[in-house]
Amino acid sequence: MATRKKLKFGAIIHGVGGNISAWRHPDIPSDASVSFPFYVRAAQKAEEGLFDLAFIADGLYINEKSIPHFLNRFEPITILSALAAATTKIGLVGTLSTSYSEPFTVARQFGSLDMISGGRAGWNVVTSPLEGSARNYGRTEHPSHDERYRIAEEYLKVTKGLWDSWEDDAFVRDKESGVFFDPAKMHRLNHKGTYFSVEGPLNIARSKQGQPVIFQAGSSESGKNLAAKEADAVFTGHESIEEAKAFYSDVKNRTVAYGRSRDDIVILPGIGPIIGSTEEEAERKYEEIANLVSIDKALDYLGRFFEHHDFSQYPLDEPFPDIGDLGSNSFRSGTDKIKRTAKEQGLTLRQVALRSATPRGPFVGTPEKIADLIQRWHEEEAADGFIVHSAFPRGLDDFVEQVVPILQRRGIYRTEYESDTLRGNLGVPIPPNRYAEERSRQAAR
Amino acid sequence: MATRKKLKFGAIIHGVGGNISAWRHPDIPSDASVSFPFYVRAAQKAEEGLFDLAFIADGLYINEKSIPHFLNRFEPITILSALAAATTKIGLVGTLSTSYSEPFTVARQFGSLDMISGGRAGWNVVTSPLEGSARNYGRTEHPSHDERYRIAEEYLKVTKGLWDSWEDDAFVRDKESGVFFDPAKMHRLNHKGTYFSVEGPLNIARSKQGQPVIFQAGSSESGKNLAAKEADAVFTGHESIEEAKAFYSDVKNRTVAYGRSRDDIVILPGIGPIIGSTEEEAERKYEEIANLVSIDKALDYLGRFFEHHDFSQYPLDEPFPDIGDLGSNSFRSGTDKIKRTAKEQGLTLRQVALRSATPRGPFVGTPEKIADLIQRWHEEEAADGFIVHSAFPRGLDDFVEQVVPILQRRGIYRTEYESDTLRGNLGVPIPPNRYAEERSRQAAR
Repeated sequence: MATRKKLKFGAIIHGVGGNISAWRHPDIPSDASVSFPFYVRAAQKAEEGLFDLAFIADGLYINEKSIPHFLNRFEPITILSALAAATTKIGLVGTLSTSYSEPFTVARQFGSLDMISGGRAGWNVVTSPLEGSARNYGRTEHPSHDERYRIAEEYLKVTKGLWDSWEDDAFVRDKESGVFFDPAKMHRLNHKGTYFSVEGPLNIARSKQGQPVIFQAGSSESGKNLAAKEADAVFTGHESIEEAKAFYSDVKNRTVAYGRSRDDIVILPGIGPIIGSTEEEAERKYEEIANLVSIDKALDYLGRFFEHHDFSQYPLDEPFPDIGDLGSNSFRSGTDKIKRTAKEQGLTLRQVALRSATPRGPFVGTPEKIADLIQRWHEEEAADGFIVHSAFPRGLDDFVEQVVPILQRRGIYRTEYESDTLRGNLGVPIPPNRYAEERSRQAAR
Repeated sequence: MATRKKLKFGAIIHGVGGNISAWRHPDIPSDASVSFPFYVRAAQKAEEGLFDLAFIADGLYINEKSIPHFLNRFEPITILSALAAATTKIGLVGTLSTSYSEPFTVARQFGSLDMISGGRAGWNVVTSPLEGSARNYGRTEHPSHDERYRIAEEYLKVTKGLWDSWEDDAFVRDKESGVFFDPAKMHRLNHKGTYFSVEGPLNIARSKQGQPVIFQAGSSESGKNLAAKEADAVFTGHESIEEAKAFYSDVKNRTVAYGRSRDDIVILPGIGPIIGSTEEEAERKYEEIANLVSIDKALDYLGRFFEHHDFSQYPLDEPFPDIGDLGSNSFRSGTDKIKRTAKEQGLTLRQVALRSATPRGPFVGTPEKIADLIQRWHEEEAADGFIVHSAFPRGLDDFVEQVVPILQRRGIYRTEYESDTLRGNLGVPIPPNRYAEERSRQAAR
């Protein structure tokens, strides 16, 4: 596999992290989700580890049962922009929903972040799984899963079109003649579609990386198709290497079917490594965090994926209840998997809730063991790299200080940044400006 | 006037500045409007001058005739957030339109900026004067001037309500008991109005300054009323001290009529100081910039205020043409003033266009003269302070290095920041959380 790209890494930096009760751990600052210094430290640590990107997740609805650090957290565009000033090489990727926003504004905000950061912006395109979002945006109902993806597809078309408003050499800025730009190289999109109607042009030029990197995180059929057609990177999640390999080859094949190259898209499963100097120490760390979660909180957490369903009404130690279609219009691929796994493995409600609240995954053990697993997933085409999240005190630090050097010694991870843009480091192509491309195509005839 | 607050200053930092052709000046970087280092340098210079705030203007529509540096510029939320990381004391204020955005998102973005910056955010609430904005946001028509202000008023009500979603002591974060927050101190807004319907709560807490500072910049009747009712600060513009005094007392009186104190709102006219070591040098600097503007560009610039009206169709050296009602649904107070002044002073179209393109104002001369004028405007209640914009090379530097020390020696300007929040420096009150206030009112009964 001489041509295999080296490993890519992202770091999720959202304060107190994935576990619903991690904030209770004595070594974790409980206000981390709104501590700017905490975010800066995490982003700089990831940059020290030569990570491709820092990742900020998001959601548009909360209630009393939400995950504590989702109740009070930074909005992605603002925190990523602030981090642009505190970092120099690492990519800055954030979640933003196409169901409750305007493409002109979002194209501007990501375009502007891309320019401020010198070509390091990325957008994780989501369609908002949480039904309650509608009620924060004056809508009577949340669009259906399929319709959300149709909106997202048109939305992305508009956004990418707006990002090409100016050809790369449009701004002449000739002080002598007073010519600031070449009008032939400014383009109005004039999009009129089913969901959007946008004239353009956008009031910001393309950055060094052409356009912000597009991430997609949905694993449903619609999600995989949107990724294959439009995305540069996929953020996914799997419990086993077999599952990851199947997903990987599925998405790569779909990408090729859309006329793109397999290398045009990078697939990055999320992992939550738990690192100890011995296996036992790592297991003990996992237990420490898992034991912070009460069964009540675990049931609340589980409920969030199923439209905030109240699971406390069912017996805890009987098989996972039959809840019918619930969850299919929210986190569809996730809820399908929970139901399927519960049935296949004969799990009780208590087991399902506790596992969901503190997912364990295979990446638990010594730095060597974790490096071995990462290498295997990479070599066997289960992943092009990983998005690392850690709710554990010093989890990211341990990964950067103990796992990264092993991967570097093995020659499968960079020892310095290849580029100062996110596309350059991820190794995904710079999209040519569509109008310049058309112009050169015509000139070639 | 023993109780008079000291002077307040803001700096407009939008790259190559107000004059349509300033980018042609040999000492001005022509790509400044998208140069992050240029913005950082300007914000830090203003902070060195102990300015209250840096100000980012905005617009949602461009065409070939737009001001060059508006064609390609940073979006306010992103650049302000990035500047939050590059500064420590100065306020960060940006323009955002209530006609083409969603209050839940905007409340989050300014709330998040406020938290990231440690209580330094401000929002200049505008209603979008440019008609073309509608076409970038899928609307068939731009709302009328009056309707835009009705939308803005309801919008602000929603936003301020969302900012109070969490009482200041709502986040208990008791690691031992596992109680993250007190549900009695989380509040749903449940707003259902004419234009918006928003449930809440917002997913970010109040900052150190309670809520972002509200700026208002409209000078029409609707604009002044909105300011008097809802704003903490007014950004205005006047050509003479008489005009400024009339506006000042008008807005202060309206504020009192809404049951607020005169000191609850600060009035900051924009000035474009042109500083020379002699009067002649200052005049020469003005001419240098004014001469960069061709009459064609000046006509384009003028047209932008009147819905991009084509003024090239009229004779240049005859009286300013009768264009009827044009402009009354865009920059109403500005266009009214242009028409009125042209008539009163018997100006030709050429004169009106060139004056608009390079406004001169009274603040031209030596540092002493400019300090004298500032002191007089302040003492005579024409202004509580000023928003300084300068298209001139080193214009902000000259002001900070040469005018600020004079004002400090006279004891009318701070020698150090009084606070690390924007409200603290402006001397405007922290709005109490409405629910906590109600609670203590009830307890007092």
